[in-house]
Amino acid sequence: MKPRIAVTMGDPGGVGPEICLQLLQNADVASICTPVIFGDLGILRRVAEKLAWPMPAESAVVDLRAMDASSVQPGVCDARTGAAGFAYVNAAIDAALAGEVAAVSTAPLNKEALAAAGVKFPGHTEIFAARTDSKRWCMMQYSEEITCTFVTVHVGYAEVPRLLTTARILEVIELSAEGLQRIRGRAPMITVCGLNPHAGEHGLFGDREEERIIIPAIEAARAKGIRIDGPLPPDTAFLPWKRKSTDVFVCMYHDQGHIPVKALAFDSAVNTTLGLPIIRTSVDHGTALDIAWQGKANPSSLAHAVTLAVKLARP
Amino acid sequence: MKPRIAVTMGDPGGVGPEICLQLLQNADVASICTPVIFGDLGILRRVAEKLAWPMPAESAVVDLRAMDASSVQPGVCDARTGAAGFAYVNAAIDAALAGEVAAVSTAPLNKEALAAAGVKFPGHTEIFAARTDSKRWCMMQYSEEITCTFVTVHVGYAEVPRLLTTARILEVIELSAEGLQRIRGRAPMITVCGLNPHAGEHGLFGDREEERIIIPAIEAARAKGIRIDGPLPPDTAFLPWKRKSTDVFVCMYHDQGHIPVKALAFDSAVNTTLGLPIIRTSVDHGTALDIAWQGKANPSSLAHAVTLAVKLARP
Repeated sequence: MKPRIAVTMGDPGGVGPEICLQLLQNADVASICTPVIFGDLGILRRVAEKLAWPMPAESAVVDLRAMDASSVQPGVCDARTGAAGFAYVNAAIDAALAGEVAAVSTAPLNKEALAAAGVKFPGHTEIFAARTDSKRWCMMQYSEEITCTFVTVHVGYAEVPRLLTTARILEVIELSAEGLQRIRGRAPMITVCGLNPHAGEHGLFGDREEERIIIPAIEAARAKGIRIDGPLPPDTAFLPWKRKSTDVFVCMYHDQGHIPVKALAFDSAVNTTLGLPIIRTSVDHGTALDIAWQGKANPSSLAHAVTLAVKLARP
Repeated sequence: MKPRIAVTMGDPGGVGPEICLQLLQNADVASICTPVIFGDLGILRRVAEKLAWPMPAESAVVDLRAMDASSVQPGVCDARTGAAGFAYVNAAIDAALAGEVAAVSTAPLNKEALAAAGVKFPGHTEIFAARTDSKRWCMMQYSEEITCTFVTVHVGYAEVPRLLTTARILEVIELSAEGLQRIRGRAPMITVCGLNPHAGEHGLFGDREEERIIIPAIEAARAKGIRIDGPLPPDTAFLPWKRKSTDVFVCMYHDQGHIPVKALAFDSAVNTTLGLPIIRTSVDHGTALDIAWQGKANPSSLAHAVTLAVKLARP
């Protein structure tokens, strides 16, 4: 029996509705799961009509009627669309917690619209972490070409060194090992990046963060039986031969991993959060207001997100 | 008339001699320049004999007799090989300063051997900067796929923010504009990366380094007529469409540029120093002692280095 995957419609004013409509027509996706759109059926119908696309099956939509379909303006996100997008996510989380769906994949929300709606969370990751009361989680960017997890993410460049601790790095290594075990169906090979150029070259650059903080985490992980290598110089870590032998790179900061992921897998990467009690994957793009409701948005990222959700949801 | 390019033989114990021998057999290189090896003819002959390769023409070598050929051990770098490698570089710099060669391309030196020989410079860049009394220079990693210049290079991760100044960023932008003008034969398009994730997202991450330090440099460069864009989020700066429209990326720190260069152009990137009174390019690999004198070293990086030197040397 194929798993049911909740797919949130995203902010109604963005490209979320149209990529959800395309997902419902995707035969590859239909062959591995039953996607269910958590959104507004009236809005999906308006977009389908505008683009002369097939109407969505009623059975494929959980119609939350969070806002009046006729009041949405393509390309405009405001307090009402932000509140509606938030309502879709909350309903999908409820369904996942109740076991009614095997995972949640999310279309993009709009940060400003969420704020205008009085939602205090900046994005999906924080909503899911708070709603599931999760304390131990990390971001993962997944693609067939390269996969990275992150010790720190949305903080300033200068704040990173003082946020690195052996405990946090070990936590991300363990989350990475668990997540990739699920995806690959075998014990993964993990590569940990250093912080400094050349991974510090034995203290030549930096404050020996590799020796003081990163290596102890690697040794602790190895003692637990995790297959792991590092800390590698961040620039040579991502060489083709190393990518081939690595299932996941543990990165110290946002751009250390996002630069190679976007350079190498710019249209196929999926964003996910490891460590939550429910599975959540997300498109790797925003609401793209300039092209909303025009049928121009690339639907492949959402399909990739759903495909990864199915892999992570395997018992 | 084809330009003469000085090619230093590198540390005799490493892969330098064999890649120099292969360079002399490279028809593509011979079609654009006359390479002249600055090294020891006796050592080149020993390596050629060991590998059953063609002997180098005497006219293609400036025989510096810096060390006894029979005393070199393949894969061993020590004070004597370090001193010899340093002597080759000094002779090539002298030749370039005297106008006897149009540029210098360097095979790899060994940092430990240099130190053992009492040489205080950690590598080529510092030797060239000191010998030419240069105050204003920057590193460039060049490839057909992607080219980056660097505001900071071999310093610890945590030291970068306080080394960023508007004056230094403007200096690197101007050096980049001059260097790429030479290579492309037209005014280049420059993209400047931000420091923080998402280039700070208007102060959301970081200490507004983009607004305080980077943007003033971009505006000053634009006022001087330089075609320039940025500061871009570092992860989206290197997307394929942006790479296509960019001649050179100005990077704030070592790994910001070295990660995409190595991921995308791992065997074709050339290291060079912009701003010196003489032109200097270098292979992008080390002495590779484990495979020295075995004929296994990939000679393409030195060929790329010489090719770039010819482009930079154009009047």
